[in-house]
Amino acid sequence: MNGNGVHHVSVRTHMSMNPAKLKSQRQRWNVKPSEMSKKTLNPIRAIVDGMKLTPNPEKPMIALSIGDPTVFGNLPTDDTVLHAMKEAIDSHKYNGYAPSVGYQKSREAVANFYSCPEAPLEGKDVILTSGCSQAIELAISVLCNPGDNILVPRPGFSLYKTLAVSMGIQVKHYNLLPEKSWEIDLQHMESLIDDKTACMIVNNPSNPCGSVFSKEHQHKILSVASRNCIPILADEIYGDMVFPGCDFHPLAPLSIDVPILSCGGLAKRWLVPGWRMGWILIHDRNDIFGTGIREGLVKLSQRILGPCTVVQGALESILNETPPEFYQSTISFLKSNSEICYSELSTVPGLNPVMPSGAMYIMVGIEMEHFPDFQNDVEFTERLVTEQSVFCLPATAFEYPNFFRIVVTVPEEMMIEACIRIREFCARHYRPRSQDSHELDQ
Amino acid sequence: MNGNGVHHVSVRTHMSMNPAKLKSQRQRWNVKPSEMSKKTLNPIRAIVDGMKLTPNPEKPMIALSIGDPTVFGNLPTDDTVLHAMKEAIDSHKYNGYAPSVGYQKSREAVANFYSCPEAPLEGKDVILTSGCSQAIELAISVLCNPGDNILVPRPGFSLYKTLAVSMGIQVKHYNLLPEKSWEIDLQHMESLIDDKTACMIVNNPSNPCGSVFSKEHQHKILSVASRNCIPILADEIYGDMVFPGCDFHPLAPLSIDVPILSCGGLAKRWLVPGWRMGWILIHDRNDIFGTGIREGLVKLSQRILGPCTVVQGALESILNETPPEFYQSTISFLKSNSEICYSELSTVPGLNPVMPSGAMYIMVGIEMEHFPDFQNDVEFTERLVTEQSVFCLPATAFEYPNFFRIVVTVPEEMMIEACIRIREFCARHYRPRSQDSHELDQ
Repeated sequence: MNGNGVHHVSVRTHMSMNPAKLKSQRQRWNVKPSEMSKKTLNPIRAIVDGMKLTPNPEKPMIALSIGDPTVFGNLPTDDTVLHAMKEAIDSHKYNGYAPSVGYQKSREAVANFYSCPEAPLEGKDVILTSGCSQAIELAISVLCNPGDNILVPRPGFSLYKTLAVSMGIQVKHYNLLPEKSWEIDLQHMESLIDDKTACMIVNNPSNPCGSVFSKEHQHKILSVASRNCIPILADEIYGDMVFPGCDFHPLAPLSIDVPILSCGGLAKRWLVPGWRMGWILIHDRNDIFGTGIREGLVKLSQRILGPCTVVQGALESILNETPPEFYQSTISFLKSNSEICYSELSTVPGLNPVMPSGAMYIMVGIEMEHFPDFQNDVEFTERLVTEQSVFCLPATAFEYPNFFRIVVTVPEEMMIEACIRIREFCARHYRPRSQDSHELDQ
Repeated sequence: MNGNGVHHVSVRTHMSMNPAKLKSQRQRWNVKPSEMSKKTLNPIRAIVDGMKLTPNPEKPMIALSIGDPTVFGNLPTDDTVLHAMKEAIDSHKYNGYAPSVGYQKSREAVANFYSCPEAPLEGKDVILTSGCSQAIELAISVLCNPGDNILVPRPGFSLYKTLAVSMGIQVKHYNLLPEKSWEIDLQHMESLIDDKTACMIVNNPSNPCGSVFSKEHQHKILSVASRNCIPILADEIYGDMVFPGCDFHPLAPLSIDVPILSCGGLAKRWLVPGWRMGWILIHDRNDIFGTGIREGLVKLSQRILGPCTVVQGALESILNETPPEFYQSTISFLKSNSEICYSELSTVPGLNPVMPSGAMYIMVGIEMEHFPDFQNDVEFTERLVTEQSVFCLPATAFEYPNFFRIVVTVPEEMMIEACIRIREFCARHYRPRSQDSHELDQ
C-alpha cells in the first residue's frame, strides 16, 4: 500500500459489530451552539435590539448612533485612496495569498509611516490584520489566557469586553473621569491590578468620549503599567484625528520600558472602515515581549490569513500619497460639528455634554433626576426616537449609564436639526428640582 | 456628577496605601505568549521550516508546493472579476461597514448562485467571511466546545487541526483510501464517533488528494452522519473545479436530514485567494441547527466583522458575469497538467501517483523500501530540492507519511521539466528489492 504506515485492521474488526449497538453512538439530533458563541455578546446589539425604536412618522429619522463616517456620503475618502486601489487591481500583482502577517512591502509602508526616532519601527514590527477588530483580537489572544483579566476603560468600546469574555478572560473596568475631560482615574486603574492582570487596554483618542490624552497623562498611564509590569494594548484607531490646538501623542514613543501593542488601521482616518485593513505595531524596545509574543502573533495570524491583498497592495500609496488637506478637511468638519453640537446642548437644561478634542463622538450626560419620565438613558434615548426621530446610543452600551453618545459625522444641517429636536424633547420632559417634593420626601 | 452611578470612594481609600506594598503587585516583567497562541500550530510551516531547502545552484528552482494558483502568472483571474472590483470602488458605495455577516445583497447573490431545488438557499442562509479559512473557523467555533472532538480526513488540509487544537478541540483522523481514489474509509470514520464528536469535516474536492467523491459515496457519508446524528462541515472550496467526465456533487442537496455548513469562497475557482472572500452556506432543511446555530454564527461574525466591503460589493457581478469559458479554461489546464504529471510519474519506478479528478493537486506515493537513502517523505523531498531544485510538499504535512503533494497550477513547461527531474532523482536513488537482503533478514 505505497509504503504508507496507516493500518485499518483493528478498526475493521471493531466495526463488525452492529453500529447501532455501539455505546458511543448518539441516538438523536442535538446540535447546540458552542459556549464560546453563547459567550460572544455584543452589548450594543443587545441593548439596541431590546429598544422599541419607532420613529415619529412626521419627522424624518436622524441617526446619530452609527460609528461609521461614510453613511451619509458627506465624508468620502480621498480620490488618492480609490486610485491606489484601482492601481493595485490593474497591476494583477495582488490576487494571490500574502503572508499571513501581510506583504513585507506593505508592512514596511506602515512601519515607515508610524516610525519615529523615539519609537522606531521596521516591517517586522507590523502585523497586518483584517481590520482593527482583528488587531485587537490578536493582541488580546496573544497576551491573555482564560482566567486572566484585562483592564478596559469605562466608558469604553464594547468590543474589548465582547472578545475577552468570549475567550474566558475577565474584564475589569477602570473609570474615566468626565470632569477631567475623560482622563483615566489612575488610582482606580491601579487598584484593579492583580496577579492575573495580563494587559491594560488604553483607547486614545477615545470612542465613545472623543477625548485625547495629554502627554503628561500618557506618562502617568505608563507609570502605572511600568510599576506593575503590565503590557499595554493601545487602541489608537482614532490616532491623529484630533482637533487643531490639541496634539495626539501616540503612547509608544513616550514609553521607557512598557511594551506596547498599538492597534490601528485605515478605517477612521482614511474613512474606509469596510475595507478591513488594520494593523498591530509591536513596540518592544526593551525586549520584554521577546520572540515569544512576536511568534505568537504570527501563529495566530495564520488562523484566517490577514486582510484583503488588494488593500494591502494599495497601502503604500494610500499612506504616502493621500494629501494633508484630506486629513485636515475631515478634522475641521468634525471639530465644527462638535462645536455646534456642544454649544447647542450645553444650554439645554438637564444635559451636560463634554466637549471632545478628537475622534468623532460627543458624550452627553443626562441629569436623570430632572427627567422623571424615564428610568435611565435607555428609556430616554428610546423615547427620543418615538417623539423626535433622533437616535443616539445610550451609554449603557459602553457600561456608563445616564449618558448618551452622539456621532458627529452627520451633515451639519442634520446635526443642527437634531440638536433642535433634542432641546424640544428635553424641554418637554424636564422637571426642575422641586423644593416641595424634597420636603415631602423628608 | 451628571447622575452617573459610578463611585470611586472605596477605591481611593484603598489606594491611600503605598502601591508598592500591594500584595497583588507584579514585581518584574514576565510577558509570555498565551497558551492558545502556543497551541496554534501550523504543521506545514513546522515541517517546511525544519527542512534544509538548498536548491541545486545549477538548476532553477521549481516550486510545486504552493497551493496558490496565482504565483506563476499563468492563471490570471478573469477581466470580469477585476472590472467588478473597479466598479465597486467607483460606485463609492462600499467603503463603510457592512453588517458583520455581509451585505444582504451580497449574501443573496451567493444564495442565488448556489441554490438548487433540492437545497434552496436564501440570503439569510449565507454568512460572508474573511476567506474560507474564517468560514471554517466560524463553523468549528459554533459547533464545538473545548473537550469535544471533530473528525477530519487523513490525508487532509492542515488548517482543520490547527484551528481545532488551538480551541482545545480534539482531532480524530479518519482514513482516505488511495486505492479507492481517496474515498473515505467509512467504517473507520464511524468507529471514531463517540459522545463527544461534535462535527465531521468532509473536504470534497480534496486538498491534498485532488479526489472528487461520487454521488453514491456522498450518500454513504451522509448515512454515517445521519445514523450518528453528527452535523457536517463540508469544505467545498474546490467545488465545481472538477475535470470533464467527472461531476461535482455538493453534499447538501443529497442530504435528507443531516444539517450541513458548507464552506466556500472566491479563492480557488475565481483565482483570487488573497482577496479573502469566503462564505458559509447554512443547509438545515429539517431545522436541526434551529436558531441557535444561526445566531451563534452571527455572534461570532461580530468579532472581526467580515470580509472587505469592496469585494462584497463586486460579488454579485463576479458570480453572475464571469463567463463559463473562464472556468472551463482553468479546469482544462488543470486536467492537462495533471495528466502530464500523472503519466510521467506513473512510469517512474518507486513512485505511485494517484490520478486526481479535480482541485489542483496530485498525491504521489513513495515506495520507501526502494529508497533506502531516505528515512521518510520529508528527507526524500528535502533531497529533491538539494539535487534537482524541485520542491514538493511532503505529505507528512497532511498527516500522511510517505507521499508527497504536487500542485498542478504551474506552467506546462515547468511541470514537464519538474517531472523529468523527479524521474532523474528517483533513478539515482532507487534500489530494487534485493532477494539476498530479504534472506539475510530472516
